Amino acid sequence: MTELAQKILAGNTRSIARAISHVENDREGREALIDELYPHCGKAIVWGITGPPGAGKSSLVDRLIERLRTRGKSVAVIAVDPSSPFTGGALLGDRLRMQKHAVDDGVFIRSMASRGHLGGLAGATADALRIFDAAGFDYILVETIGVGQTEIEIMGLSDIVLLVLVPGAGDEIQALKAGVMEIGDIFIINKRDLDGADKLRVQVEYVLGIKFAEQSDQMNPILMTSAINDEGVDDLMDSIGEYVERMKASGKLANRREQRLQDEIKTILSAKIFAAFHDFMQMNGEIDTLVQEIVHDKQKPYALINAKIDGFIKEMHTK
Amino acid sequence: MTELAQKILAGNTRSIARAISHVENDREGREALIDELYPHCGKAIVWGITGPPGAGKSSLVDRLIERLRTRGKSVAVIAVDPSSPFTGGALLGDRLRMQKHAVDDGVFIRSMASRGHLGGLAGATADALRIFDAAGFDYILVETIGVGQTEIEIMGLSDIVLLVLVPGAGDEIQALKAGVMEIGDIFIINKRDLDGADKLRVQVEYVLGIKFAEQSDQMNPILMTSAINDEGVDDLMDSIGEYVERMKASGKLANRREQRLQDEIKTILSAKIFAAFHDFMQMNGEIDTLVQEIVHDKQKPYALINAKIDGFIKEMHTK
Repeated sequence: MTELAQKILAGNTRSIARAISHVENDREGREALIDELYPHCGKAIVWGITGPPGAGKSSLVDRLIERLRTRGKSVAVIAVDPSSPFTGGALLGDRLRMQKHAVDDGVFIRSMASRGHLGGLAGATADALRIFDAAGFDYILVETIGVGQTEIEIMGLSDIVLLVLVPGAGDEIQALKAGVMEIGDIFIINKRDLDGADKLRVQVEYVLGIKFAEQSDQMNPILMTSAINDEGVDDLMDSIGEYVERMKASGKLANRREQRLQDEIKTILSAKIFAAFHDFMQMNGEIDTLVQEIVHDKQKPYALINAKIDGFIKEMHTK
Repeated sequence: MTELAQKILAGNTRSIARAISHVENDREGREALIDELYPHCGKAIVWGITGPPGAGKSSLVDRLIERLRTRGKSVAVIAVDPSSPFTGGALLGDRLRMQKHAVDDGVFIRSMASRGHLGGLAGATADALRIFDAAGFDYILVETIGVGQTEIEIMGLSDIVLLVLVPGAGDEIQALKAGVMEIGDIFIINKRDLDGADKLRVQVEYVLGIKFAEQSDQMNPILMTSAINDEGVDDLMDSIGEYVERMKASGKLANRREQRLQDEIKTILSAKIFAAFHDFMQMNGEIDTLVQEIVHDKQKPYALINAKIDGFIKEMHTK
């Protein structure tokens, strides 16, 4: 076993930080490191926290960290930020609120942005989860901004997803769009003292009602909180605990983890087989030629692509 | 040439509608159809319109259609909605505002949602663009909701991207997050009569100022409109026209189209090579075995995956 893997398993914070930069940038040795850590994974519980900007996710995460620390649990937080470098500044402020935990050894907070990882931001986050898990953190909280496809993929890495909504964020119905309702296990209406909180609750119940009828067989809890005033947080903690226990008892947690791993393996296979293909073709300048033929000669694109793939499978062997 | 392709080239609306359902569901014959149409593509100008929910995009699209029709141009509109089936209802209302054009033969409005297309929603949209282009529409307007990765990909299919912002949508800075500013060519502050419109303009100028300094060599226009009161729309039309002319003159339009096609070809190659790989392995139950080994025996995941890929390349030939 490498020294880095040993130090991670011992919970050394500098080694953990270094390993995460490692996987984020897809450096040499990343795969070997994950292979070393993987057999030590599976003990941490992963909570995903998502919702629209301004819903108070960071304040809520802050409260959840406090509660978990009171119970003597260690906590790693991954704040995933797919935004661009030049608008990143605004998010940094949100993160700072969590910095009071920075002096606590039982809390490790890490921001991640998209880098060179083959599997994109979701792939890098999956690796970071394994590092924290192997390092022995009891809980890992993954927070994302917004509700795009990348965020939905990242939430798919969690054992349980907390969807944080807020009343009065423009048209409430808007907040329920974009496929985000389906990924929530527990629904939180934060800033519950604001006008419209009860109305939002009714809307969520309505949408979930439709969801039940269509597909779900399990009740999704709806909680009302005010993270900033520390209200409703204990009820939320209870609700999360019960939900996870139910998932364990029913086998749903194990199923979800297996499904997630299966998806991840397929994604890695897909990326790797294409990389092999791409290296091979690029070497021959074939992709450029293909593009030129399609762009300038107005050739039939699919006919050319299909011929190229047939050729690839044959040539790959003779190489 | 198939009858369907002939009818599309002749501009038959029923055939166009049928072809789009065809590509959306990735039916048999999709590739052959696109191959037939592709040599007839490249004449339409594609405008992408995006921005946060509630910015008034549909009203603005409505005005732009009016202006283009006044100039005798035919217009196709693709409203892309990545939201889930059960929340889709809310969006339908937005769409209805454009329905007054439904009786106009020179306007074709089509909603698209994710279906079975190999390349996802962006792939289906790319195919739909080719169908409208081959059918002879002068302009194609692609409207998306929200600012996720899928929407950014879809905006990448456009010749020019109009980013529609609105004052007072919560914290204005929030609207500028998530990498969306980079994809805009022309910035529109709609609902310009609302408080905060001037402040938002200053913020946009500030962010664009940073963008200029870092990467851009071309001025991005900022326009103030009130689509609902039909104000600022003529200035916007002029601005779009001038911007596209500059892009043509500088070669930027041709470059963007070539880059887009190159990206698309790579995506198709990637999906196809993986599909071939997947079919082959699934046939042998190998992916399931791999997942079982990794999940239950806690084997090193990357070592197993890499061995499997090496094996694939060899076995593929002997098949």
